[in-house]
Amino acid sequence: MPVCPIDTGRYGSKEMRTLFDEEGRLQRYLDVEAALALALSEIGEIPKKSAERIRRCCSVKIVTPEKVKEREARTRHDLMAMVEVLSEECGEEGKYVHWGATSYDIVDTSWALIMKQGTEILEDRLRRLRDLLCDLATRYKELVMVGRTHGQHATPITLGFKMAVYAAETARNLERLRDLKKRLLVGKMSGAVGTMASQGANAFEVERRVMERLGLRPAEISTQVVCRDRIAEFVCWSGIVASSMDRIATEVRNLQRTEILEVAEGFEASSQVGSSTMPHKQNPVDCEKVSGLAKVIRGLILPALENIPLWHERDLTDSSSERFIIPFAFILLDEILRTMERVLKDIRVFPENMRKNLELTRGAILSEAVMMALARKGMGRQTAHEILRRASARAFDERKGLKEVLEDTPQVTALLTQEELAELLKPENYTGKAKELVERAVKYAKGVDQKQPSDEWQAHSQNSRNL
Amino acid sequence: MPVCPIDTGRYGSKEMRTLFDEEGRLQRYLDVEAALALALSEIGEIPKKSAERIRRCCSVKIVTPEKVKEREARTRHDLMAMVEVLSEECGEEGKYVHWGATSYDIVDTSWALIMKQGTEILEDRLRRLRDLLCDLATRYKELVMVGRTHGQHATPITLGFKMAVYAAETARNLERLRDLKKRLLVGKMSGAVGTMASQGANAFEVERRVMERLGLRPAEISTQVVCRDRIAEFVCWSGIVASSMDRIATEVRNLQRTEILEVAEGFEASSQVGSSTMPHKQNPVDCEKVSGLAKVIRGLILPALENIPLWHERDLTDSSSERFIIPFAFILLDEILRTMERVLKDIRVFPENMRKNLELTRGAILSEAVMMALARKGMGRQTAHEILRRASARAFDERKGLKEVLEDTPQVTALLTQEELAELLKPENYTGKAKELVERAVKYAKGVDQKQPSDEWQAHSQNSRNL
Amino acid sequence: MPVCPIDTGRYGSKEMRTLFDEEGRLQRYLDVEAALALALSEIGEIPKKSAERIRRCCSVKIVTPEKVKEREARTRHDLMAMVEVLSEECGEEGKYVHWGATSYDIVDTSWALIMKQGTEILEDRLRRLRDLLCDLATRYKELVMVGRTHGQHATPITLGFKMAVYAAETARNLERLRDLKKRLLVGKMSGAVGTMASQGANAFEVERRVMERLGLRPAEISTQVVCRDRIAEFVCWSGIVASSMDRIATEVRNLQRTEILEVAEGFEASSQVGSSTMPHKQNPVDCEKVSGLAKVIRGLILPALENIPLWHERDLTDSSSERFIIPFAFILLDEILRTMERVLKDIRVFPENMRKNLELTRGAILSEAVMMALARKGMGRQTAHEILRRASARAFDERKGLKEVLEDTPQVTALLTQEELAELLKPENYTGKAKELVERAVKYAKGVDQKQPSDEWQAHSQNSRNL
Amino acid sequence: MPVCPIDTGRYGSKEMRTLFDEEGRLQRYLDVEAALALALSEIGEIPKKSAERIRRCCSVKIVTPEKVKEREARTRHDLMAMVEVLSEECGEEGKYVHWGATSYDIVDTSWALIMKQGTEILEDRLRRLRDLLCDLATRYKELVMVGRTHGQHATPITLGFKMAVYAAETARNLERLRDLKKRLLVGKMSGAVGTMASQGANAFEVERRVMERLGLRPAEISTQVVCRDRIAEFVCWSGIVASSMDRIATEVRNLQRTEILEVAEGFEASSQVGSSTMPHKQNPVDCEKVSGLAKVIRGLILPALENIPLWHERDLTDSSSERFIIPFAFILLDEILRTMERVLKDIRVFPENMRKNLELTRGAILSEAVMMALARKGMGRQTAHEILRRASARAFDERKGLKEVLEDTPQVTALLTQEELAELLKPENYTGKAKELVERAVKYAKGVDQKQPSDEWQAHSQNSRNL
Repeated sequence: MPVCPIDTGRYGSKEMRTLFDEEGRLQRYLDVEAALALALSEIGEIPKKSAERIRRCCSVKIVTPEKVKEREARTRHDLMAMVEVLSEECGEEGKYVHWGATSYDIVDTSWALIMKQGTEILEDRLRRLRDLLCDLATRYKELVMVGRTHGQHATPITLGFKMAVYAAETARNLERLRDLKKRLLVGKMSGAVGTMASQGANAFEVERRVMERLGLRPAEISTQVVCRDRIAEFVCWSGIVASSMDRIATEVRNLQRTEILEVAEGFEASSQVGSSTMPHKQNPVDCEKVSGLAKVIRGLILPALENIPLWHERDLTDSSSERFIIPFAFILLDEILRTMERVLKDIRVFPENMRKNLELTRGAILSEAVMMALARKGMGRQTAHEILRRASARAFDERKGLKEVLEDTPQVTALLTQEELAELLKPENYTGKAKELVERAVKYAKGVDQKQPSDEWQAHSQNSRNL
Repeated sequence: MPVCPIDTGRYGSKEMRTLFDEEGRLQRYLDVEAALALALSEIGEIPKKSAERIRRCCSVKIVTPEKVKEREARTRHDLMAMVEVLSEECGEEGKYVHWGATSYDIVDTSWALIMKQGTEILEDRLRRLRDLLCDLATRYKELVMVGRTHGQHATPITLGFKMAVYAAETARNLERLRDLKKRLLVGKMSGAVGTMASQGANAFEVERRVMERLGLRPAEISTQVVCRDRIAEFVCWSGIVASSMDRIATEVRNLQRTEILEVAEGFEASSQVGSSTMPHKQNPVDCEKVSGLAKVIRGLILPALENIPLWHERDLTDSSSERFIIPFAFILLDEILRTMERVLKDIRVFPENMRKNLELTRGAILSEAVMMALARKGMGRQTAHEILRRASARAFDERKGLKEVLEDTPQVTALLTQEELAELLKPENYTGKAKELVERAVKYAKGVDQKQPSDEWQAHSQNSRNL
Repeated sequence: MPVCPIDTGRYGSKEMRTLFDEEGRLQRYLDVEAALALALSEIGEIPKKSAERIRRCCSVKIVTPEKVKEREARTRHDLMAMVEVLSEECGEEGKYVHWGATSYDIVDTSWALIMKQGTEILEDRLRRLRDLLCDLATRYKELVMVGRTHGQHATPITLGFKMAVYAAETARNLERLRDLKKRLLVGKMSGAVGTMASQGANAFEVERRVMERLGLRPAEISTQVVCRDRIAEFVCWSGIVASSMDRIATEVRNLQRTEILEVAEGFEASSQVGSSTMPHKQNPVDCEKVSGLAKVIRGLILPALENIPLWHERDLTDSSSERFIIPFAFILLDEILRTMERVLKDIRVFPENMRKNLELTRGAILSEAVMMALARKGMGRQTAHEILRRASARAFDERKGLKEVLEDTPQVTALLTQEELAELLKPENYTGKAKELVERAVKYAKGVDQKQPSDEWQAHSQNSRNL
Repeated sequence: MPVCPIDTGRYGSKEMRTLFDEEGRLQRYLDVEAALALALSEIGEIPKKSAERIRRCCSVKIVTPEKVKEREARTRHDLMAMVEVLSEECGEEGKYVHWGATSYDIVDTSWALIMKQGTEILEDRLRRLRDLLCDLATRYKELVMVGRTHGQHATPITLGFKMAVYAAETARNLERLRDLKKRLLVGKMSGAVGTMASQGANAFEVERRVMERLGLRPAEISTQVVCRDRIAEFVCWSGIVASSMDRIATEVRNLQRTEILEVAEGFEASSQVGSSTMPHKQNPVDCEKVSGLAKVIRGLILPALENIPLWHERDLTDSSSERFIIPFAFILLDEILRTMERVLKDIRVFPENMRKNLELTRGAILSEAVMMALARKGMGRQTAHEILRRASARAFDERKGLKEVLEDTPQVTALLTQEELAELLKPENYTGKAKELVERAVKYAKGVDQKQPSDEWQAHSQNSRNL
């Protein structure tokens, strides 16, 4: 029975998980071996019919996970076990399998293949989430609610404004992904220490053809492995995205508090169980899951960074840790993003509670509005600040409304009429440029797609093919 | 197909893995439910025959993982799914299942059961490792080799001395485990927020009987969950132990370097493959695995600590992360310890290379010995230090032996005869108290077992039962 | 001008900071040099009058930080710079300075001296905090308030119960400190690679006398340095304590929310400024500082663990990082603890808001009470759970009180009278064993002091002196 | 006396440190206040002469750190203390100070100002380092040395090849910095919760003018603070760069080992002290410092990520941690980069030791070359691999050269003449495309500068100004 909650089926979409499971990884090893054999045959290094035979055998149907594991038990080297099984399946032609290659030519190039598909899934999810957030931002751009700092009521915002902040942050995460992909998705066919010695005179041509066939770029230079700063950058990114999602999740968890209840996760009241003992509970369990998994992802960053300073042309200490780090970063982020998509799709909004909360402090959240009005009437900002600070404290202590106290404050009544004061104390009059900021943020957030498939990528590609 | 290298069978002993797999965890849930039902029946809260029926159904043979998962798909609450299936299997008596309990009474108490067995496995492995290290320390306490600081030759040590350092560190890790177990292995039967309200008047008696039956102590006080500082402490410990093992592993990796080759991992030369492309390689792959997995364990600490400040009487953000943190800390440490045991058992020692390396710097590693001899002859420590520093630099630059240079240094020859100098420059004459320190360290390391099952534990237990 | 907020005076008590500042550290280096000289003279290794002269010069008044820094600019070795200046100040007797010692004999032994005083400060603060929490627990053990899980109202607790949970956690942290001190507070006088070679035949006697004079235990065995697992354990502990304090701080921040306001930090209403622009704000800034600094402390753990696997008999990569890790762990924890003490001393409690919040859900928080009553009347737990779950959902949807809905539910009215229902729905009737649990927790928390200065410590000491 | 090694002057260039010290930060606060006053006066919100007066007072000469600290002791709010002192210094015009602003308009915009200069310093250092590495790569592109994997001799590389790997990695770090700067260097003038309410109708115009004057872009949208994913991204980057430098440092430390000694740090033999007790030591202390500080920087990442999910429109828990995280990430990276520059400038290369090490295994490192030659002669790769694996093992066991063993192996001699074998076993014949890869890597590494000041940046800027 499985131990890991990914393997029990608890976390991760099937689509993402199968990229990383034993069969998925093995198939990509075989894809790279096939591409290598074909490339070698095209330039005459190995016979065409051998390459064709190898290509046909490069399938998990033939080189099955079971056969490979059985072999590995003996050789204690997983990649070599695959190579041996494949060679045998190819019969006489087997002698051209893995020609001139080192294990990590296969492993790292296959990681790039997997990560290419994995980042596409993540990018797609992020884009959908960004769109959802933009929709929510636009739909609710005028729905006034309390803005909070330090957990305390501050001044009013709108729900759309809050969502626009998240939309823009999600767009930055998309931008970051686009930026890093040009460094992440590279393969190698450079041999045991990176010098391509084993591929002979045609090494660059072999590399070019293998990568082209697989839709990858070659690393400009590598050691036995593609340098690990590339993977560390991705894992750092996954930690940033997870924390951004944690931010939204924490917000929902807080706004769903019994005392606040301005928004809430969807809840299948007919069947879902909130608590095994408290039948009334409707808990933000999806958001709590997101916050929980974000902690796990953040924990992957340190090992990913520790993998950068490998010794010399590589040591093996990245290998065991990457068996966890790479799949977990992808699959847990996948789970986080699809959960957050569900949360935002089904989010329940309670405008009447927003209104109730706006009135909870009887005016205190508009103290800044009054202060600026007094300041503009010539009182000066610092004096006005002090008057309002004292008035607010008095209102709090005497359990009065701010209006009441201010109407009892001569310095205030000297400058503001009762009507002016009443207008100043309406929350909807003090949301500033919330609406326009939503529009600016949505425009930015949507705009990150329009950008060209980055000239940099092309420059990169040319650069690495120029020899 | 599985993704996680624990579930592919790559890492972790079967013994440890089955503690944490779906079935293992489910059985422990059922064990706690059974203990609860029996306790309740003993004090007359529920009928004896109901409790007996429940006890009989509390088996994964009856409440199978499959049934529970199917149910969870609907309720989206894993523990409640188990409770429902169990209730149904108990027929009429099912109404007494989970009586007065909250989900985490079951979950956290079952974690304690699992961790109790898990820590026993780890403790056993650590003890065996400590014994191995003590044996190596004793066997090699007079085998002289180079001591190194900054990667540079320093002054001589013995191989046994090096091993004794690790033996003592391992013993400290055993001591730490004993210290923390009294805080870690506690269950709870205190209900939804920790007040025991749902268990009624006999709550303390229920708690006492459940824990006694399960061989656990109750937490002195808890919220919905046992406080997470207890688990965080264990995970920190696992990070310390993993790093201690990483230390030994790194040492072997360094001493196995082609240029040094003083010790090496065992290698099955007849079949094991070192490299898929470099047939001559004999790589320290076990030690590299240990160093790699240590990185992963260290990455679990931060999420474990972030789980301490849960909101109020608990939020759920520990739940998803603990599905990774707890099993992974145990299983990966298990893998590290059993790997290190194999490494140390099969370690190959090359005394002739040690001797060769001792002579590599032609005397420089004895510069301190000469310095102290000159100092003792009245030259003063700082003057002697400066003379030796210059002599060493000259020996290095002119590629000469230190002896040669010193014999050409009047301040030295004025105080030391050629014979004295020759004696001072023998490595075996300058290992100080290495032998006695080995004995002291081994005595300490062996001694950590003799200590009493800590009065503290008893004080603890009494304290928590005193009401 | 300083950069670090410790050096600008923002964080850390003066008492703690001066332990770690340049002068404080230098004085402890000198203390160790003095103890060494005296020990050597007692056993006749160096002249008594030289030792006396050295002892007199071992003061930062004579060997000033300025002189040492000036020297270090040239030698690029801070400890050697101190040794040189000290030697010169001792004139002719200077030649016996640092006799047989290596830099880290001095550095690590002086760390132990500092950490001994540092842990006393921390222990004292923790004890005071534990006492405060016990007082609050006792004082408020019957003050009923809402218990919350998932940020949602769950079932009632008392404020004292909440405080007792923290009191027990704080006591565990005291226990942990006592456990680890026996491993942390050790010095060394074992020379360049730990073999004591440079101290000659009397090495053990030198070690014994130096440590006795300084009030330390010697490490059983060491390399050039005391093994770093000892320091890592302390830093892990500081991360656990910081997270425990973060837990209390987060609780206050949440309970001080405008909508909840059950407790609040003290606030100097006459002068303190909450916000530069929102005059009404009273922010939980002390608790926010605690949560913020806890993040920084947690970040120290990884480098501390990475320092365990130093190469061979040591490499220097711990040195630069420990200049941050060790002082920061002590000083930031000191700041956290003294802040939390102030918060708890001045905490404001608002019983009327607690009462208001208890009534907010109009009975829902007692759904478990009703469920268990129905179950006990023979309905069975699962059926009762389902009835209450539906009733709660209906109450929520129809904005009704739970009582109202239950009185409209035949299965309920068939078993419970209106009076019984009314009693069940009083929060104060459903706090279970809160009071007794407070007493149990306080008894445990106070009890951790009574334990003997641990036999283990003595066993330790004997063990290490036995040769 | 200072505690922190940054404030004792140990780490960080003066240039970088003064950006972050108390005076440096205060001056930037004042710069933002001045820019705000001038912007407001330009659009007629406040009188021109008031703005002019404010501008003149916005200097640490007038608003001194001392005055501000004294004030803060009373208000317990550092930014407000500055505002009050500045207001008083401006006399009557003081009432227009901080007009419509919230503290974090000032704080976060000033962080952007500091980080703009800070990233310029880092970029400059990285560029110089990249150039140095390109030079070393080119100079040594044909200097053959052993390539190592798993700490074992693998196949030959050249020193230039090794350096080219680092040059390309450093160039990627430059690329990353350029990518993230467009997200990092943004200010805000959007008030208490980000809606700009307090700036009134002209808020966008105020924002535009302030940012233009300061040379910054405004965030598209913000809360009370600029969203913390921006800072977290930078800190992650600093962790990647630090780890890249740790990689080079670790390499030097390993290659400088007494047994290897192929390169070494520069050493001032006439005065520098390697060890206080071992006069012969020449330790790679600069590289050890780099590795040590890299650990500290990696430890900053977790708190930086935990700062992303602030509550609502912000909580204050980022504030205390950022007082450490931001300056430390910049200053420690600065120290690392300038140290590594010195190391690479003064690096000592020992070609004779490289040659000696190439011959150490008497041919084993060319086993792949022979294997591929045999494979190409028709033997097939797997058969050839097995023959060489056995031959290497035999050579190792019998302490023979590989050539000797191979000449004694019929399958080999059947296909290869003695002359062919001799050629195959020359290291310089088996460096593959090392030279061309150096050229490709250097071309890429130099090329990252030529890229346009990124269209993205401009798109960004336009986007945010479009309203």
